[in-house]
Amino acid sequence: MSRPTDVDEWSAPARIAGADEGISADELRLAARNHGLPLEALRYDVTPAGLHYLLTHYDIPAVDPAAWRLTVSGAVARPLSLRLDELRARPRVTHRVTLECAGNGRARLSPRPVSQPWLDEAVGTAEWTGTPLAGLLAEAGVAADAVDVAFTGADRGFERGVEQTYRRGLPLAEALRDDVLLAYEMNGGPLPPQHGAPVRLIVPGWYGMAHVKWLVGVAVLESEFDGFQNVTAYRVKQTADEPGEAVTRILPKALIQPPGVPDFQSRVRVVGRGDVELTGRAWSGWAPVESVEVSTDDGATWRPAELGPQPAPYAWRSWRYAWTAAHPGRYELRARARDAAGHEQPVDQAWNRQGMASNHAQRVSVVVR
Amino acid sequence: MSRPTDVDEWSAPARIAGADEGISADELRLAARNHGLPLEALRYDVTPAGLHYLLTHYDIPAVDPAAWRLTVSGAVARPLSLRLDELRARPRVTHRVTLECAGNGRARLSPRPVSQPWLDEAVGTAEWTGTPLAGLLAEAGVAADAVDVAFTGADRGFERGVEQTYRRGLPLAEALRDDVLLAYEMNGGPLPPQHGAPVRLIVPGWYGMAHVKWLVGVAVLESEFDGFQNVTAYRVKQTADEPGEAVTRILPKALIQPPGVPDFQSRVRVVGRGDVELTGRAWSGWAPVESVEVSTDDGATWRPAELGPQPAPYAWRSWRYAWTAAHPGRYELRARARDAAGHEQPVDQAWNRQGMASNHAQRVSVVVR
Repeated sequence: MSRPTDVDEWSAPARIAGADEGISADELRLAARNHGLPLEALRYDVTPAGLHYLLTHYDIPAVDPAAWRLTVSGAVARPLSLRLDELRARPRVTHRVTLECAGNGRARLSPRPVSQPWLDEAVGTAEWTGTPLAGLLAEAGVAADAVDVAFTGADRGFERGVEQTYRRGLPLAEALRDDVLLAYEMNGGPLPPQHGAPVRLIVPGWYGMAHVKWLVGVAVLESEFDGFQNVTAYRVKQTADEPGEAVTRILPKALIQPPGVPDFQSRVRVVGRGDVELTGRAWSGWAPVESVEVSTDDGATWRPAELGPQPAPYAWRSWRYAWTAAHPGRYELRARARDAAGHEQPVDQAWNRQGMASNHAQRVSVVVR
Repeated sequence: MSRPTDVDEWSAPARIAGADEGISADELRLAARNHGLPLEALRYDVTPAGLHYLLTHYDIPAVDPAAWRLTVSGAVARPLSLRLDELRARPRVTHRVTLECAGNGRARLSPRPVSQPWLDEAVGTAEWTGTPLAGLLAEAGVAADAVDVAFTGADRGFERGVEQTYRRGLPLAEALRDDVLLAYEMNGGPLPPQHGAPVRLIVPGWYGMAHVKWLVGVAVLESEFDGFQNVTAYRVKQTADEPGEAVTRILPKALIQPPGVPDFQSRVRVVGRGDVELTGRAWSGWAPVESVEVSTDDGATWRPAELGPQPAPYAWRSWRYAWTAAHPGRYELRARARDAAGHEQPVDQAWNRQGMASNHAQRVSVVVR
């Protein structure tokens, strides 16, 4: 298909919002479609369907499961084409995995990169059931000099002027991990359309862009994948011109389940004076979370929270903290996590121009009365 | 509980955005929690779980179904208290119903009322299964001079400075309709937490505020219900001081399923030159939709669409329109519906200060190449 001459008018390059620029109509339109986890849903170990965050680059495609085929091609000895029933007949495993959008926290950056305007809520944890990708790759016979595997979805659109089908590359070593799944169930039910039906990729530990939905193609590559979603999008960089660093695994983050009751419009919380149990979740894609600390004075002082069990290597961990809200007034609650690989969650923003992999600490405003 | 002294700082009165004011952080926070129907999901006769719109005034409450009781009280001969298994043992019916938030379209008004900033997407259609409320009211024995029935949810918070549990009144004649349900299933599965588990009210034809979620109380009243959600919120009015008109049934509306492929950021659609089948849905809470018209020139000219069957009295109806996109360029698509009761959807906004019951025509921007 040809490139329309006026493409810059409706598929413009990325930009940074002006200092006093409110959220634009474009950003609002994205926020209305791509929903976050309502933060009270942090109460669930496994996020119920419909509360898990969702980011769709283009449209949710209509994929006919009867006509669906998954091809395994490229640098393989035996290319494959599988029907859904053939995929489902293969070894079946379930992993509990926390997914987070790489753009989570973007709308809290200043200045704000204009894109999907996530605040804190682009996260969720589900039980994903499917078959390991590694088995399929072994059957296909990966070439000795293969380096990357490219995954193609059924979803198509324009992005920053470039027409494309959603496609992401993953290093071969990651693709061969035994916990990387071709998933066809979520939380024990069929994969919902919006989460990639009939089959999606699950790459535990990685930000959401790696978990390609509506998967139709797996291609083994003998050179590094250089498609838009790896080389142009999902880069941590300061200027438009530098290549930047690839976004990969999820940096540690803790979220507080907002206590008390909210105000409808401001979402400020109201609690009674006295003992308030604060709870939340923390996760990292690099290593288990090994500490969560809580501040009730906007980051001036910190105290350790009590951690619950780590239910699975890449699933969030619960935490709790006994707060004595002794005096009426306004409080700003924060939480921060550290993982066993030594990654420490910063309290304040580390700005980058795409607003990627931001893990500055959430702020929950509470009125004690 | 006492009224905090600083309540106006975090639970302020309703306001109208300034002429050039972008979407505020408050509004974005609401948009990130309360999600709309991604418009491509108009393809489904029944909206899959997780794609149906959702508006939660406060938090989704954690209701223990084992401890849950529904009380029927007030002006009745025999007050009732029912467990969930008792409710489920009663006569069981299923209705397909389209629900729309009364605030849908609010963020397209100019000037913009500051609240949940819906564009076009606060709608969905589900199969609701439950037991008719009328049977329960008959068993309780409604007093001869009863006028309203008040429904109380388990969700609590502040709104415009007023602390409250969500509560809505409904005229007795509506509450006694045989299609008004106490619903415990959605689309054949258990009611999800975010849609009101374990039990919610369904009032076919009415805007969403009437369908009280997390229902715990039904109270028959001998005077008109004067609670916040009927008397202060959900009013169509021009000035802050007038009482305005109550929001009741859904005004007719047609939505276009956006054709072609989208741009990620602007959501402008791209289609190839030639024949483009436009499809969509239309609904009204007053009477069946009897016509849908489509404009491909931003409302200058209109042509009739072909209507699909009316699947249930209060479910949306599909429509289709064969568009010949003969020339490359930019087009603004609109659609408008009329119902059998004579309600006609306006093309342009009829402003009101809460942004309620707005049914101006959607606009879909399309590039033909």
